[in-house]
Parts: sequence; structure tokens; C-alpha cells
Amino acid sequence: MAAHPVVSTRPIGPTSDLGAVFDLAQQLRVDAVRASTAAGSGHPTSSLSAADLMAVLMARHLRYDWQDPGHPAADHLVFSKGHASPLLYAMFRAAGAIDEEELLTGYRRAGARLQGHPTPVLPWVDVATGSLGQGIGYGVGIALAVRDLDRQPARVWVLCGDSESAEGSVWEALDAAGRLGLANFTAIFDVNRLGQSGPTALGWDTERYADRVRAFGCRPLVVDGHDLAAVDRALRTAADGEAPTAVIARTVKGRGVAEVADAEGWHGKPLPEDLAHRAIQELGGVRHLTVHGPQPPAAAGAGSAAATAHGPDGTGNGGRTAVELPRFDLGAEVATRSAFGKALVALGERADVVVLDAEVGNSTHTQDFAETHPDRFFQSYIAEQQMVATAVGTAVRGRHPYAATFAAFLTRAHDFIRMAAVSGITLTLCGTHCGVEIGPDGPSQMGLEDLAMMRSVHGSTVLYPSDATSAAALTAAAADLDGISYLRATRGAYPVLYGSDEDFPIGGSKTLRSSGADRVTLLGAGVTVHECLAAADLLTERGVSARVVDLYSVKPLDSDVLARAALDTGHLVVAEDHRPEGGIGEAVLTALAAQRLCPGTAHLAVRNLPGSGTPEELLDEAGISRRHIADAAHRLLQS
Amino acid sequence: MAAHPVVSTRPIGPTSDLGAVFDLAQQLRVDAVRASTAAGSGHPTSSLSAADLMAVLMARHLRYDWQDPGHPAADHLVFSKGHASPLLYAMFRAAGAIDEEELLTGYRRAGARLQGHPTPVLPWVDVATGSLGQGIGYGVGIALAVRDLDRQPARVWVLCGDSESAEGSVWEALDAAGRLGLANFTAIFDVNRLGQSGPTALGWDTERYADRVRAFGCRPLVVDGHDLAAVDRALRTAADGEAPTAVIARTVKGRGVAEVADAEGWHGKPLPEDLAHRAIQELGGVRHLTVHGPQPPAAAGAGSAAATAHGPDGTGNGGRTAVELPRFDLGAEVATRSAFGKALVALGERADVVVLDAEVGNSTHTQDFAETHPDRFFQSYIAEQQMVATAVGTAVRGRHPYAATFAAFLTRAHDFIRMAAVSGITLTLCGTHCGVEIGPDGPSQMGLEDLAMMRSVHGSTVLYPSDATSAAALTAAAADLDGISYLRATRGAYPVLYGSDEDFPIGGSKTLRSSGADRVTLLGAGVTVHECLAAADLLTERGVSARVVDLYSVKPLDSDVLARAALDTGHLVVAEDHRPEGGIGEAVLTALAAQRLCPGTAHLAVRNLPGSGTPEELLDEAGISRRHIADAAHRLLQS
Repeated sequence: MAAHPVVSTRPIGPTSDLGAVFDLAQQLRVDAVRASTAAGSGHPTSSLSAADLMAVLMARHLRYDWQDPGHPAADHLVFSKGHASPLLYAMFRAAGAIDEEELLTGYRRAGARLQGHPTPVLPWVDVATGSLGQGIGYGVGIALAVRDLDRQPARVWVLCGDSESAEGSVWEALDAAGRLGLANFTAIFDVNRLGQSGPTALGWDTERYADRVRAFGCRPLVVDGHDLAAVDRALRTAADGEAPTAVIARTVKGRGVAEVADAEGWHGKPLPEDLAHRAIQELGGVRHLTVHGPQPPAAAGAGSAAATAHGPDGTGNGGRTAVELPRFDLGAEVATRSAFGKALVALGERADVVVLDAEVGNSTHTQDFAETHPDRFFQSYIAEQQMVATAVGTAVRGRHPYAATFAAFLTRAHDFIRMAAVSGITLTLCGTHCGVEIGPDGPSQMGLEDLAMMRSVHGSTVLYPSDATSAAALTAAAADLDGISYLRATRGAYPVLYGSDEDFPIGGSKTLRSSGADRVTLLGAGVTVHECLAAADLLTERGVSARVVDLYSVKPLDSDVLARAALDTGHLVVAEDHRPEGGIGEAVLTALAAQRLCPGTAHLAVRNLPGSGTPEELLDEAGISRRHIADAAHRLLQS
Repeated sequence: MAAHPVVSTRPIGPTSDLGAVFDLAQQLRVDAVRASTAAGSGHPTSSLSAADLMAVLMARHLRYDWQDPGHPAADHLVFSKGHASPLLYAMFRAAGAIDEEELLTGYRRAGARLQGHPTPVLPWVDVATGSLGQGIGYGVGIALAVRDLDRQPARVWVLCGDSESAEGSVWEALDAAGRLGLANFTAIFDVNRLGQSGPTALGWDTERYADRVRAFGCRPLVVDGHDLAAVDRALRTAADGEAPTAVIARTVKGRGVAEVADAEGWHGKPLPEDLAHRAIQELGGVRHLTVHGPQPPAAAGAGSAAATAHGPDGTGNGGRTAVELPRFDLGAEVATRSAFGKALVALGERADVVVLDAEVGNSTHTQDFAETHPDRFFQSYIAEQQMVATAVGTAVRGRHPYAATFAAFLTRAHDFIRMAAVSGITLTLCGTHCGVEIGPDGPSQMGLEDLAMMRSVHGSTVLYPSDATSAAALTAAAADLDGISYLRATRGAYPVLYGSDEDFPIGGSKTLRSSGADRVTLLGAGVTVHECLAAADLLTERGVSARVVDLYSVKPLDSDVLARAALDTGHLVVAEDHRPEGGIGEAVLTALAAQRLCPGTAHLAVRNLPGSGTPEELLDEAGISRRHIADAAHRLLQS
């Protein structure tokens, strides 16, 4: 195959010979080198190893219309090894999606869209990657949505690094692909044997990779990643629709540039100008080839459950219908998690709503939805990272996912949640069994850090209902929010506080008790609302009138009502079933400080290491029970 | 084998026949049923499936002195399926470690030590479990510490559920066990085919489990988990010191109680009183057998690197020696991550210090320690969960681990960090590359939520140095802290601000500029300290004298200095390279509110979704640069 530039007026495509594909690969290499050297940072050697794989893929197998990335039957390409962005962007240039100038001046620059790691600010990127071991999981989620929700012939290709296979999340993803038999899914492992700081654990032991892939239910295809014919055969096999596949490609990091090929110490380093110059010479110089690869097949008809990235009905509103929410009798004792489950069933009316759980659906009550809408319920087993990744995949395909598990175990997926926000994904998480309120199961099962985690997610909305009516309403409201929303749900059953016609605007609150004589305001959310109400009764006995506010919207917070409470009553007690840091108390105090309000405040939160006990005992031990709230109010008034 | 009670005065031990071991298993079952029914909650059926496995283990293989759980050569037993606590506590009763009364009245009760899931408040428990997929990782860490640090003949046994094998962390653990050849490690998978809400994904496909275990480098031994002779042979093989082993035991959930055996709907439910009564009858009634199993071998001598749970030198002070910290020239530009690396090398003098990294040691600078102290450096590859789990394992064996990766990727291990705090573990985490300051790599690599995560960890200490001197000092100080400490490190190099003799007490701060004319205080940490200093210069140009405070100790915070700043200057600007939620700003405002201080405040934090760019550009775009700080101060003074 020629190593010198080929000038061709014909685009390279499925019928081009492998010589042309090789030229394309060399162009991708040259452009990856050029882009990263121009930027002064980036990962050229990690790009060089995968250039042959991607050249074959884009010329012959990736069914994609670069002018119409939202085509419902188009394949998806995910760079799980997001640091190989110079290669991805070189592909965009070859496809004519971006021009050479953007590649050479816009990479890693402020305000530019060619970021260090790909994000969906680019129309050809579905999900942000760069936190390793995630892209493969998103790919699995997309493949599932394509097959089971959209019923489209689209396929999903994921380029993975070998280093990232050390992440357990990669095996959660392959386990899901295998178990679900996602024959439209292919992972391509670029086994270049060198990680960031040294050799990988498995080196070039491609058979070991194959054993693992096979054991997790996927079809391994081991190839020399620089043998274009072999790669072509492997990708053809992968696309045969027979099985979820992992192509295990033995490659050389820095391939094509002798001075850095298979050499340590070159990870994440652009080639210096002089070396870049020699590299480009060695690679045959700058080329201007274009690619016109396979086009998407016809989309499945409207009669199918087809959806586009703009929502299942193609209107962009997600097929919203008026939802008849469950109604609860005032005073009846109902757990918010139970109301969440019932609301999900009602929301099932909306075609865009899908629900996921991590094998605790009988506790989170997603089981209700699983029974009424089995075609839109996905069991993730105890794999919270993949649960969120699958949720993201369904969101990429226009769905609004609700993913639920115990609040404590959502911490397992923290990095995925963070990255979903970077991707600009819209989804709802529900964390049940929050706080010490869960009682006898003990601290391992208590979500005590989840508000801090979810509040700090970029653009998130954090909701924490105290009763069944508000839980159902907020569950439904979440379906119309953008970005990551979080619903915190309590284990135990507590009295219904609100009538079915009550509104619960995002950013609002409910003032449950109020009078002109109020001398203190008790602020709670979730279970502590009930404790605040009881504390107000205790205070009444002591001759103190207390206002009670339900802060069901933790982020955004109702600053106006807080300000009024501070001005009217001069004293605030905040009680939360959460650690003191990053939760409701800090949110309240920050909101007051922003308005330069300085009431007397007491912040009751879980400062101890709880054990087992009844909910009442543990709330009291943690210092957030009615008694403690009343006492704190009393002390404030006396100080 | 007899199913009726056996009255024996001899304890059951290694020489007892399997009939006696069966009786022990039945006793464990009866006690698990009794404890959970008495408590009114718990997981008896998950205990029944594993009772035979644990009876054989404790009678014949677990080398343990229940009176001396800290014996340096004693085996470790970890219940990764922590919900099987009734079984574990039944074993404690059989061993004479707790009495019948405690088992029947203390389980899951407030203030009692027999919590719903085991924690180290019990002297026979090394690590808290209950968040599934973690105990196996901790076991791997303990096995590594035993073998490579303590050089003791102790072995590690971990009882795992089958459901939890869906967690990727389980495969990170087995990958580490296999790669490291931890022949002193055995995982016992209780494959009872039923999870919480339904059947597991793999059911009783024990060969599939075996394939996975083998592919990850461990030795699978498939057995009928109720065939005591087969279990005995498997555990004997596991203990042969040849290979890390996973016993794949096919079992029946609820085994021994016909009404619940292999039945769905019984997970996590105590048997009702009447059913418990029938179950105990069926199991042969209440027994009072005692176990005297194999004893620990002699510990390796003092000449070895032996350590106990009380510290490597057995004195409880962790072998502390005076450490000569690196010194840096004032004004020289040094990255805090670089100073961290150099300080670790110096800390290597202390025999208890071990260091771990997740394949980014050339970025975090743990590579320096790896070069100088290779025997105490552990490469975790890109598996942050197992990195923290291994760190916990070394802490169980008396070491002080430092585990480092990018701050963003510590979110991957959030659940492990949370649980380490429940375990009461002491360790230090270092998160480098925090904030938008990292520049061109983009948002996937930016730790912007780590302060919220780490502040909310129970009992944590959070440190965020601005220069090399303070970074080195705080790295060293962390070695003497209890609990989880966190060091946040910056990518870029900034001027050294402090002389080598400066002290940096935990809970302190440094006032870098101060005068009687100060009209505003600029509060920063890490990179924003440098921005605050530059902002103070800008303000001087505008005729405003500004105080500058370095809040290197984020938790605990220097409330006194904050109070003085508020009182002296009346206006505070806080700038942090972190999300607004859960970070420094909320900590500061909460601390002021607690003192009922109400200065004018501005809280600058990263409220945008950053992209790529230079550090300067991104700090400015995020609104936390010198210009923004000065402007915010100016606005405060004008308001």
C-alpha cells in the first residue's frame, strides 16, 4: 500500500479499495498530529493507534449522514477513549463536517467546540467522554434504546481504550450487552498496551481480553488492528446482527511515527513542532481526502415505536399528555417512595417515559411501572453505574428516563451523573431510603450524602417531598425539567399533608403553619417536615408560635419565603436528615447570606455515625427529631 | 446426617466429623432465624443459603482466635454480603464471642453493636459492609497488605452474594487478586440465584461464574454449597496457597426451611413468629454448640515487616519518625501536586505510609514515591473503586494509605469513601487537577464537585493548599489525622507563598494581607488564593485596601479568622474553583451564620459549564478570576 499522498477527486467510500482506506488512515494520523501540536496539548499517540480501525469503520461500516446526525436509523459512534479526540476530529474533517481551519485553530481553544475531550456541543457527539470506562456503557444504553424502544436498524460502535478496561464499569456494560443480546452493539478495543503512566496490566494479551469478553456474554473478535483487511472482516462480522461484539484489536501506540511508536513517555503529549514535521513527512504528508461512507438505511416507519433525538413523536415535546396523578387522602400514611411508584405508573401515559432500577424495584416501587409498562422498564441488576449509563443512552434517543435505587447507592454512579450533566442529558434520578429514617438496616443503607452530591451537579434540580401528594406531583414535574433532576424519597409512611389539587412549583415551598405571632420558623424537608410540625406543637405548649415551612424544592430554593420567614420571625431552625455539609442547611444559610439577612439560626443535621434502631430513635439520636427542633427553637429565642 | 439436636460437651473443631459440622450449620440457621424474627427485620433467607459454607469454614479452615481478633497471623473473614449479618452474628455466638442474649435482644436495636449490617464496632469485623460489591475489594486489599507488607501467613476469606457480582467493582477486585496472584485470598460466592426483587441475571449458571472468575485470573472451584464434604474439599484447596480462588457454591436461598426455600418474595424479610417456630422445629431445634476452630499459626517474627492492626511497630503510633519535608524557595513556581509527591517521598521514612494510584502517577506525582519506595507503592490501574478498597485493606492492617488520582475521578469511588468512613478507617485521598484551572483538557477532567463530596463524608478533614510549602506540610499533617482526610491539589505551578518554617494547623488559615484600613476580605483556597492576591493589587489601584485569607483548611474551617474578617472589614468575597454547592463558599457562609455575623458577601464559584481553554481564560470565564474578585469587592463596597 502506498505511503505517499494520493490525490483523488472521488471520496473514499464503501467501494474504495483498502489502499485508499490506508491513505485515509494516514490522513487521520497526520491531522491528529497537526491538531494536537497546534493546540500544544492532546493525545496524538493514542490517536495513531486507532487510526486504521476508524478509517475502515468510517469508510466501510459506519452508516452515517454527517449532514443529518439525528437520522433515526443512523449508526452511533462513541469514543469511550475520549482523549483520542484528535482522531475523532480528524474524522470529522475527513467527513467534511468541519474544515481544516477549525481543526488546526479550534482544538482545545477557549470558546471553541473542539474541546480536549468530546462533548455534545458537537452535533456528531452523543455523549461527553473523557472519564474512562463510561462511553461503552452509554453505547450499550443507546443500543438498547435503538433496538427495544425505537426499533430502528441503527447500530452502535464504541471505540475503547485497553487501559479503561480496568474500570469495573466496562464489565457492567459488557454484562448488560451480553445479557440483553444487543447484536447492534460493537465495542472496539484499541489494545495498544500502553497506558498513561506505563504498560497496561494485560499488555498485548488479546486472548485474555477475549476470554473476559466471552465470559461476559459477548462475541470477541481478535485482530491485528493495523491489518486493514482483517479489521474490515472483523467489523463486517460485528455488523452481522448475530451477537454483541467486542473487537479486540492489537495495535501500536504511536503507530506510523517511528520515533514514538510503542514508546513509553508519550501519553498525552503533543509532538514538538520538529518531531511533528518529521512525523507528517513519515506519514506521507498532508492529505485532503474526503469520505463518503455508507448511508443510514431507511428508518423504520411511523407505525413502529420510532423516535428521534427530538422525542418519540418527533415534535420535541416528548409526546406529553395530560397525566392523571394518583390521589391520596389527607392524613393517610403513605411513603413518598410508594407515591413515586404510583406516579410513574401514571406517567407511563407519556410515551417518552422509561424507568430503570438496580434490582431494588420492590423497595423503590419502580416495580409498579415494571408491571404496567414492562416494555419501558429496564432492570439493571445491582450495577448502578450501568443503570445511569443506560438511562443516558435512552435520553440520547429522546426518552425521559427515571432511574431509581437507594439514595446511598447512587453515590456508586457519581462520576456517571457528573458526566451526564457535562453531556447536557435530561434524566431523573430517584434515591429512596434516605437518611437515618430508614431505621434498623444501619448506616450502609442510609443516604446521608446524596443532597451534597446532587446539589453540586451542574444544572441539577433537587426535590425532596414530605408527603405522597407532593411526591407524586414532583415526580410528574420532573418529566418536564431539563437537565439532571433528583427526587429524594423516604422509606417510612407519613401522613398526607396536601390535597390533590395543590401545586408544587419548582423553586417553591409550602408554608404549613403561619400566624402573625410567629417567633421562629422551622424549616424541614421530607421526614423533618413532620418533625417540624410536631415540634411546632411542642412549642405551642410552651407558648411559642412557630411557622413551619416545607422546603420540598431544595434546588432551586424558595429564597423569597426564606427571606420573609427571617424578617417575620427573626429565628430559623433548619432540620435535615443528611450530613451538615452540602445539604439543606447550607443551602438555606447561603440563600439568606445572599440577601444579607441575619436571623438567629440553628442547623440540625446528622452529625453522628448512626447505627441501627427505629426511625424515631435514630432521628432523635441524630439530633433532628421534634424534641431537638423544639429545643433548638427555644434556645434561639432565649439567646 | 442427623437433623435432630446433638448435645455435645466438646466444641466443634477441625477434627469433628461432618455430622457435627452439619449440626453447627443447623444451629447457625436456627440462630439466624431467631435473631431476625426477634428483631422484626433482617435477612434470614440470605443467611440460610450460606450457613453450610460458613459452618465448614469456621469449624475447619478459618484460623482465628476469637479472643484475640488482632492476632497478626489470624485469618480475616469479610461478609461482602453484609445483609447476611444474622449468619455472621450466629457464628459469633457459636464461637462464644457473643452470648445468646445479645443475639436475641441486641440485633438491629438502637445503641447495640449487632447492627443491621456489620461494622467494626464489633471487634471481629474489619470493615463495614452492606453496600454490595465492596467487601470483596476490601478483602483483596487486606490480603495484599498481609502478604506484601506484613508478610504474615494470614489468609482472607470473603463471603459474597451472587447478586453483587453485577457490580463492576467485584471484577476490579478479582482482577487485582488475579494480577497480584494473591494466593491467600478466597472469595466464596453464595449462588442462591435469588436477588432482592427477583432471580439474578445468571441464576444457577455456576459455569458462567467460573468462566468469569477464570478470565479475571482467579481459580474457580464450583461446588454444591450444601454438600459439606465438597465444600470442605474446596476450602481446603482454596487454602493451599497456590492461587487466588473463588469458590462458586450453588446454594438454595432459605435452605433448610421448606416454606421459604428457593422461594421468591422472602428477601430481607424476617420469618413471622409462627413460621419461625416451624422453621426452628424443621431445623432440629435450638442448639448450644460451640466452635473451637483452627487457631492462627505463629506470627512471622519481628525481623519481618510484621504489623498488627495497631500499627507496624506495635506501639500504636504507626512508627512515626520526624520527617524532613521538602523546602521550596519563596516565589518559585511549583505545583501543589508536585509538592505532594515530594512530601510523600519524605513521608516514606514512616514505615506505616503506603501510596496508591490509579494509573496517573506521573500526573499526581505519586510516581516519585513509587520510585523511592516501590515496596510500598501499589498501582491500581484505572480502577478507582479498587484503589480505595485496597487503601482500606492496608488501613485495616495498620497502615496509613495515601491514594491519589484526579479529583474528578475520585467521584468514581464515592460509595467506597462513604463506607470507609462508616468503617472508621483512617486514610488520605489526594485529588489533583481540580477545577477549571486544568485548562485545555475540558470538563470531563475537572474536579468541580469533589469538595462537596469530601466535606459531606462523616468525620472528614478537607485541605486545599495554595502553594508548595503548605501542600507539603498538609500532606505530612494528614498522616497524623484520624478518619478520612482529603488533599485537593492543583495542576498548574504557582508561586511559593510560605517559608519552610511556617505552620499550617488543621482548622487554621493564613492571612496573607492585612491592615487596619481593610474594607473587604478576599477569601480563597488553592488557585483562587493567587487570584485573590492579584485582585487585592487591582483593588489597591482603585484605592481599596483588601485583606486576603488563604483558607487552606476547608474542613474544619477557621471560624475565628472569618469572624474577625467580617467584623473588621464588613465585606467578604469568597472565590472557589468548584461548583457553588457544598464547597468553600457555603462552608464560609454557614460558619458566619453560626456566629450570627452578617457581612456583605459575594460568592464566586463555577456556575457555568466550562469547555477548553487556558487556565487564565477558564478562571475568567467561570467568574472566579482576579478581575471578577476585584469587581465583586467593588460592588459590595458600593452597595
